[in-house]
Order: sequence, then structure tokens, then C-alpha cells
Amino acid sequence: MKPDHLDNIVAEIADEMAQRTDRGEVASYIPELANVDPQRFGLVVIDADGHVAAGGDADVPFSIQSISKVFTLTLALGKAGDRVWRRVGREPSGSAFNSIVQLERERGIPRNPFINAGAIAVTDLILSGHQPREALGEILRFMQFLGGDDSIVIDEAVAASEQRTGFRNAALANYMKSFGVLDNPVEYTLGVYFHHCAIAMSCRQLAMAGRFLAHNGRNPSTGHNVVSPQRARRINALMLTCGHYDGSGEFAYRVGLPGKSGVGGGVLAVAPGKASIAVWSPGLDAAGNSHLGRIALEALTKRLGWSIFGV
Amino acid sequence: MKPDHLDNIVAEIADEMAQRTDRGEVASYIPELANVDPQRFGLVVIDADGHVAAGGDADVPFSIQSISKVFTLTLALGKAGDRVWRRVGREPSGSAFNSIVQLERERGIPRNPFINAGAIAVTDLILSGHQPREALGEILRFMQFLGGDDSIVIDEAVAASEQRTGFRNAALANYMKSFGVLDNPVEYTLGVYFHHCAIAMSCRQLAMAGRFLAHNGRNPSTGHNVVSPQRARRINALMLTCGHYDGSGEFAYRVGLPGKSGVGGGVLAVAPGKASIAVWSPGLDAAGNSHLGRIALEALTKRLGWSIFGV
Amino acid sequence: MKPDHLDNIVAEIADEMAQRTDRGEVASYIPELANVDPQRFGLVVIDADGHVAAGGDADVPFSIQSISKVFTLTLALGKAGDRVWRRVGREPSGSAFNSIVQLERERGIPRNPFINAGAIAVTDLILSGHQPREALGEILRFMQFLGGDDSIVIDEAVAASEQRTGFRNAALANYMKSFGVLDNPVEYTLGVYFHHCAIAMSCRQLAMAGRFLAHNGRNPSTGHNVVSPQRARRINALMLTCGHYDGSGEFAYRVGLPGKSGVGGGVLAVAPGKASIAVWSPGLDAAGNSHLGRIALEALTKRLGWSIFGV
Amino acid sequence: MKPDHLDNIVAEIADEMAQRTDRGEVASYIPELANVDPQRFGLVVIDADGHVAAGGDADVPFSIQSISKVFTLTLALGKAGDRVWRRVGREPSGSAFNSIVQLERERGIPRNPFINAGAIAVTDLILSGHQPREALGEILRFMQFLGGDDSIVIDEAVAASEQRTGFRNAALANYMKSFGVLDNPVEYTLGVYFHHCAIAMSCRQLAMAGRFLAHNGRNPSTGHNVVSPQRARRINALMLTCGHYDGSGEFAYRVGLPGKSGVGGGVLAVAPGKASIAVWSPGLDAAGNSHLGRIALEALTKRLGWSIFGV
Repeated sequence: MKPDHLDNIVAEIADEMAQRTDRGEVASYIPELANVDPQRFGLVVIDADGHVAAGGDADVPFSIQSISKVFTLTLALGKAGDRVWRRVGREPSGSAFNSIVQLERERGIPRNPFINAGAIAVTDLILSGHQPREALGEILRFMQFLGGDDSIVIDEAVAASEQRTGFRNAALANYMKSFGVLDNPVEYTLGVYFHHCAIAMSCRQLAMAGRFLAHNGRNPSTGHNVVSPQRARRINALMLTCGHYDGSGEFAYRVGLPGKSGVGGGVLAVAPGKASIAVWSPGLDAAGNSHLGRIALEALTKRLGWSIFGV
Repeated sequence: MKPDHLDNIVAEIADEMAQRTDRGEVASYIPELANVDPQRFGLVVIDADGHVAAGGDADVPFSIQSISKVFTLTLALGKAGDRVWRRVGREPSGSAFNSIVQLERERGIPRNPFINAGAIAVTDLILSGHQPREALGEILRFMQFLGGDDSIVIDEAVAASEQRTGFRNAALANYMKSFGVLDNPVEYTLGVYFHHCAIAMSCRQLAMAGRFLAHNGRNPSTGHNVVSPQRARRINALMLTCGHYDGSGEFAYRVGLPGKSGVGGGVLAVAPGKASIAVWSPGLDAAGNSHLGRIALEALTKRLGWSIFGV
Repeated sequence: MKPDHLDNIVAEIADEMAQRTDRGEVASYIPELANVDPQRFGLVVIDADGHVAAGGDADVPFSIQSISKVFTLTLALGKAGDRVWRRVGREPSGSAFNSIVQLERERGIPRNPFINAGAIAVTDLILSGHQPREALGEILRFMQFLGGDDSIVIDEAVAASEQRTGFRNAALANYMKSFGVLDNPVEYTLGVYFHHCAIAMSCRQLAMAGRFLAHNGRNPSTGHNVVSPQRARRINALMLTCGHYDGSGEFAYRVGLPGKSGVGGGVLAVAPGKASIAVWSPGLDAAGNSHLGRIALEALTKRLGWSIFGV
Repeated sequence: MKPDHLDNIVAEIADEMAQRTDRGEVASYIPELANVDPQRFGLVVIDADGHVAAGGDADVPFSIQSISKVFTLTLALGKAGDRVWRRVGREPSGSAFNSIVQLERERGIPRNPFINAGAIAVTDLILSGHQPREALGEILRFMQFLGGDDSIVIDEAVAASEQRTGFRNAALANYMKSFGVLDNPVEYTLGVYFHHCAIAMSCRQLAMAGRFLAHNGRNPSTGHNVVSPQRARRINALMLTCGHYDGSGEFAYRVGLPGKSGVGGGVLAVAPGKASIAVWSPGLDAAGNSHLGRIALEALTKRLGWSIFGV
């Protein structure tokens, strides 16, 4: 594809989204997130050649929230390999992102690494053998490395806000702890979890960080091998089946790309072999996923023919 | 790809599978299915050019069971369009193929068209305005048309066996009926459902029938347009997220292709733009999916680089 | 107690109830029941001496519905003894009268004999070895014997109405059948079940029929021993913990007597050693129990000091 | 009844229990409780005249655990009246003592005050407006007052053990907190909860403390009015329907008295108008209730004809 063509499509979609009035509801359960301007919209596509097509608020940092789960899973797989799968499953949950019912039925083993319980279990694995501060430093450096930008930071106000109000996550963590699924003190694991969810990144940084998933585990510009090709494919598969909580089926049906959403309104999507994509619109739909984010990605894959399910 | 290469890979995999002793358990809940020889194995791949690579028992008919749900969904979408989605959702269920719990929580609306309850609701839509015999005739003719073979028939012994013992499905149907989700008499809808699950096809016929899904809704050999490109993509997306019950995540993780399994041990898989694939091995894993079928497909996509999640 | 005093209290309560405008909602899910006049109210208390205090519509027959479950349990215990408890539990369900969720979790064994599933399992035991007509005749004769009135009949219009619309019960029965909990053809068991629920009795007949439960298994007027003292106590215990579906705790808390309600608006209550009580008011509360029936019984036990939980 | 007769029966039962080898399993989930000698058995009955019949280890203190929930409920009702019922329901739960599933379905409102979640919510009410130390002091003084013994203390080793390992309870508390059901900091509420569960009492002290429930809210020996007659009846009703977790139906069926068990192996039972009873045997059954405790109470009510469900 010609870079111009991609630029035009991204610009068009950013324009269309700017005009829409149906923007969903900004997440209110984390007080700091509720203050974000619902009119914000950013879209960045980085193709295989490294061309960056950017639209809207492409350089405004936002709270990546659950999108961080893709990167902590990557890190945990690197450290613990398939031992990760003793702590967490690989199936869609069929319920909301913070459901505890499934944990009771399945003895504290979360269904997948992308629901909150699963990501907390993955965080606990990264933490093992380290102090919370060290583990968090490792995660942040990994994000800076992948995003190619040392200025990426944790928004401490958001982290503190979650720590004060994250009772549901504390319930999940304590529940898993009661089954022996967590190794570390609950407050340590939660501390690291709340902080990595509070990493702030722009669409440009996020799309850069996701490039290895689009290109067999390797960033084609830097040549860095992040994971093996098989592992990249498998992370993509998990994003497709589990990346949007109880809206994963809908995202696959409409967009047709592996993707991971966060309650900050961001979505990272992967077009294997073609591009890494980041979109941001703070308003959420009923399943807790970015409302315009999904619509923008649907428009993008349709115009570019990028669905993995057919041309 | 050269046809020879594909032929060789299919032959290799058929050989490997013939030697394995871990074959899963043949389904016993339908008495007629329990009699099938667990040593059977068939594999057929039909590529974009129409080349057919066949291995093992490629021409032995088996009971397609839930694989028929892909085709009844296709038929129902053709007749009722998006009205289908008023009766059935598009999300993975997070539970077994015959779970009734989800129905109670969600007022009788099945989570997706590929669990039993969802397929019964889809069958009810096809039946509406017709006699059971007519509806069943329409489904069978559709299969003969897609499979390019008028000799495809319903195995009446299997249908009768299910009708005698299908109490769980009768529970699901009556439950949905109590919420007004079914229009027709329960016994009519169940009769059509049991019969279309009892259609017998060989891997060759099944791979042929699935070609439209691999090629944007069109059979490239006959030129028949079965569905629109968008609809083909969407059916593929549903197969990926929901096609293997509570093993859908695992299938996506290991195989990386949209697929639909049946308790007869068959699997239809789709490599968009590349091939339609049918595999058959009667022994099932714990989630009710063909044990060697999944292993064979994993080997195939690995050797051919056909995963939709990366080369 | 002096008969006059009891007569006065019953008359007072009937008067008070006649004036209340909060009457709940008449059950609509069985079409025939929806036609009953919500202004109806009957109350009959028969004390240990056989004195009958009657108020309101004491002699108007109504559909006893689930109250019949007390008597079918009594009959089944007489025929099968403790084998009954292989098919059905003895614990409150913590959910609605027609929930199917619990059945999935507990392999088709209903929690207790007073939820629909449990009563269907009990009916199946009574039916075993008989034709449906014979089993139903036995149940009806048992009711006539206990009620001391051969004119008690089944309301065929109600039975037919339930048979046409009882999809939820058909779901429960088929579900249990799939686990092997029922021995007989589902339609036979359901036929007997729908018919015994459709028995029509007046408060006077019902209070008479319940006397053996108040007096250690023996009708003190006739001297007939119906069950052993221990069995009478145990049936009373089950009525207290499970007799009002998911409102059983509330009924124990407010009324303090073993009782069994039906969606026809009747309640049979037992004051051990003191009296058998029947009340009828067709309007139901949110848990499906007679709204004024419970209020009338609360007033009665308060004025008479009949709670089993203290004077 | 003659005191001699009661003494003899209590002695007989204590003898019989001493000889039994089926003693259940001592609770292991709280490390400190696991050390208790499973051969211990105590039984104390205090009749309406204040006569004390004692058998076995009647004066050995044990951890009352969940039996404390009866007394904290009594205290909370005294302080907050019916406001208690905005935080907690009055229905049996139909599930285990520490289930979290019900909380998800019912927006954080526990089903009743005798499951862990419900008792934590009640503790939170007692705590409101106080420091944890003050609230705990109030509870302990209430127990000393009711037990007529200022030497009753909290076993700090047990409290510390629970605080270190009580992750499931921390999950429940955080979960309720996320719904706004708790007012106080989770660690404060849990601290008070763990400590009042760790109160140590002998059967003699416990039977004394329960006397007000057997006698319309009033201790007949001291003349102290603890609660109104109506409130005493209602607490008894809750004990009967909810006092033994998911074994409440079974306890009602076999014993026929209101009762509350604790995982320390104690049971407080109430024969309204007749007696207050405490029994202790550390081994538990599958539902988490004292195995021999229930058997001893069944023998006692049978020989004395004390069931509330009939002579």
C-alpha cells in the first residue's frame, strides 16, 4: 500500500469520529479517569515498512489500563514460559472483566490473562523473587523499550486512585490467594498491578510498542526480537478470543483483528504482517470497551481489507 | 504452493496420526455414535485452486453433528438477516456445549449460534413458516449443493438415537420456549435439529462445502456466490471465537484458524484465502472436540504457516 | 383456648384482609389462574379438638398448586421410604421455584422436594410401576381421604392450561431425565405432576387434610395414623426451611410456622400440637407466595402466640 | 421435667459420643484450630428453671467462631434496629459458608447474617462510629454479660492465625466494600470480625449466654431483658433456616431446633420455652458443621421430645 493512501484513510476516520456525538460513557469507577475529556480521539497506524499514519490526538498520553496486560503477559512468558499456564487459563470467560463467579467454580484459576484476575495472577509471577519496586521498574523499562521512548511514565495520581478504590480487584486477589494461586503478599501484587495499569502512553507510543505482535515477534525497524514467531501468534490468538472481555466475540465479528482494550478508552489492535494500530476514545460501551475505538477500527479494517477472516 | 507439497504434508500428517495411541474418547451419549471405530482418521485440504489433497479415510462418511451449525447459521442469515441476532448472541459462552445456566441468566437468549441452545434457536428460525419435513429438505439440499454431491444423506439411525436420548437438548429447547425465544412447537424444532446434526458426510464433501468460507463467500471452482464477503468473514469470526465450545480459546491458541467441531469427531477449518480443510478422528478431548483432529490441524498450520495470527 | 376466642380472631383477620388494597399480583403464567378474582380471601383454622374456625371464602375451591407437593412427598415417603432422598435433597435452594441453575451444578438432583424440580422427581417415584392414570387416581384418593371429602377433584381446565404452557417444567424434567434422575417417560411424569397441581380444594378441605402434620402424623378426630410422629416432624421441618421457595426465610422470620404455599394463592400452615391452618388470597408477592396469606398468618400467630420459635 | 432425668440423658449422650469413632475432620483452614484434640466432647443443657446438666468437657473453652454471629447480630439489632436488613438478607443461601457467587448476583448484599459475608456486614455496622478496639470491647463485654462470666476472653493466637490466613474473608469484605455495603476500612472491619470469632468459651458459658433466646428474650435467672420476645423469636427463626450454612435443612430435619454452628466444632441450640443447649465436638462434616455435635443434639431432642416440629 502507498503511505499516502494509509494517511488519507487515517485522516478520514479521525475526521468522522470527531463529528460523532455517540461517544459512550467515560469510566467513572476510577475517579482520576472520570476527568478525561470525552471528545479526545487518537489513531495511529504503523505499517510493515515503519510508516506512521497518525490522526487526531495521536500524541496525547492516556492511561493504558488493561492494554498493559498484553505486555505483562509477554514479559511473564519470557520469564516463566509455559508455567504461566498453571496459574491462568486460555479461554474466554463469558462474563464481565471483574467477575468473581468463575473463580469460585474453577478453584481460583482465572480463565485467561486478560481479565483482571488473570492479569493479577500474571503480575504475581513477574513479581516473584523481586521487590515490588523492582518488578514495576522492569515492566516500565519494557514498555519504554517497546515503545522506543524513555519518557513513558506511570501516572501516579491514577495509580493512587486505583489503590484507594480498587476493592473489587482486592477481592479477586484475596480470593486467588485463598486458593494458593498467588505467591506474594496480596498488597504487593496489587500495588504492582495498579501501577502498571496506570502507565500513560500516546497512541503513537502504543502502536510502536505493539509492532512485534504484527511481525512475528520482531520489530522490523529496530530488528529487535521480542518473542518467537509462535509466541507472537499465540498472544494474538489470546487477544482475539479474550481481549475485549465479554465483548470479544463482537470485536472479532465487527473488526476482525486481535485487539486489547483498556477502560482508559485505548485499544491496541494487530493486523498480522501488515500493521500495529492504536486508537483512543475515552467513552466506553456497555461491555467496558472504547465505543468509538471499536467503530474506528471497524471502518479501518473494512477500507483496508485487513480482517484476518478474509479479504 | 505446489500441489505436491500440500499432498505430501497431508499424507505425512495422516501417517503420523495413524500411529498415535492417544485418541481421546468416542462420544457415548448418543448410542449410535459410540459404535464408530476410534482408529478412523481422515484429512482433506482443498486449496484456492481447487486442488484436493486427501489422506486417510477421506471418503468415509461420518456424522457431522455440530458442524452442521455453521451451515444452518448461513442458511438462517440468508433467510432472516440480522433478525437472527435477536434470538442468539455472538459471544463465547465460557461454559460447556450444553450448559443451561447461561440461559437462565440471560433470559433464554443463547450466547452464540454454535452452542446447542443457539443452534436450536437458529433451526427454529429456519423452520418458521414451514413443515419440519420441508425445512429439513431445504437444509439437506443446501448441504448437497455446497458439498457438490447429491448423495449426501441423513443417517436416520443417528437421528432416531438422538431423538430417543436427547433429553438435555429437549431441556434447552423447552427452556427457551418458556422465554418465547422459539416460535415453533418444541418437538418440531428439535426434530429438525436432531436430523440436521445427523447428516453424514466425508471429509472430502465437508471440505468442499466449506470452500465459500475460505474465499469471501464464493466457491472459486463453481463461481457460486453463497454469501457476501462480509458475511463470510463474520461467520469465520464466530467460528474462531465460539466454534469449539469451551475449548475455543485453546483451538485459536494452538491451531490459529476458524473452525467448527462436532461430537462425531469432525472439524471443519478455514484458512481464509488459502484453503478449506476437513479432518475426522472420532475420539474426543475433555471439552468434547476431536482430540487428534486438533493435533492434526495444529501440525498442518504450523508446517504451512497458515495461522491467521502471523506467518 | 376457647373456641370463641379462636373464632373471633379468625373473623377479625378475615375482616382486616378484606379491607386491604395491597393484594399482590395474581399469577399470570398459567392462563387459567389469571382469571381468579384477586378480592377472594379465605381462612380456616382447625384446632387440636377439631374445632373449625372459618372466615371469608372458606368453602370456595381454589387451585392448590404447589401445596400438593406436601402430600405427594408424604405419599412417596410411604411408598419408597428413604429412597426418596436419593432423588432429591433436603436443603433450601437459595433461588427461585423454577431455577435450573442448581440442577446443573448438582448433577440433576433437586435441592428439595418443594421446588418444582424436586416435586417432579417425587411424582416420578409415585408413578413408577403404574400408569399415569392410576398414579393420579392414587394421589387424588389420598387427598380425598385426608380432606375427608370425596368431592375433591382435579380442575381439568387448569391442568390442560399448564400442560400447554409448562415449558419451564418440561425443561426441568428433561434436564433431570438427562441425568437419569427420572425413571418414567418425561411426558407421563409431567402429566401426573400438572394434574396433581391442579387439584382444587377449599381452605376448609385443605386445613382438614393438613391435620396429621399438626398432630404427630395422626388425625385426632378420625384416629387415622397417616405417618409416624418422626415423619410428621420431618415434613414440618422441610416445610419450614423450603416451603416458600426463596421466601422461606422471610416466612419463618415473620410467621414462625411450617408452611407451604402455591401460586394459586393458598398456604397450608402447621402449628405443631395446636392447629392446622389454611389461608387463600390469590395475589402473590415477588417470591411467588400469597401476599395477604402471609400477612394473615403473621397476624394469626402473633395474636395466638403460636410461633414455634417462642411464646 | 425432673432435673435428674435431664442429668441422666446428658450423661448418657456424653458417654455414647465418647465411644464413637466417626468424629469428622477438625477444621484445618485456620492453623490454630487444627491443633485441637478431636476426642474432645462437651454438652451442657440449661433448662427453664436454671438447672444445668453438664457432660464431658463442659468447662473446656473452645473457639466459638461463627456462633459469635448470633450475638453480634443481637448487638447490631439493638444498635441499628431494622436498618440491619438494608445490609443483609434473611434467606438461606443455598451455598457454602464462604461463597462469593451469591454476592455477585445480588450486588454485594449477603443473603443472611450467618454466612461469613453477612456476619462481616453486621460487624461493620457495630463498628461504625467506633474504633476497632472499642467495638471489640463492646462485643466481648456483651458475651461476658450474657455468659455471666467475666473471665471469657479472646484467644489472640486464633485471631492472629485467622488474620494471617483469612484471604477468603478478605475477598468477601473487599467485594462488599466495592458495592458500598461496608462503611469502615476493610482491615478494621475484618480485624473486629476475626477477633470476635476467636472468642473462647466453654459449653457451660455458651449455654448460659444463649438462655435469652430460649425464654422470649429474657434470662429467667437474672431477670435481664436482652431483647424483646418478638426479636428473640426472629433470631431463632434465622438460626433455624440459616444457622448451619448449606446443612441448615439437614439440621432442621434431624434435630428440629434453631441452632448455630461454628468451625471450632461448637453448636448453640435453642429449645424455645424449654432450654438453652451447647455442644462441642471439634470434628466437622462435609458442610462444615460439628459431626458429633449434630448427632448428640439429634439424640437429645429425640429422647426429650423437644423438636419444635412436633412432640
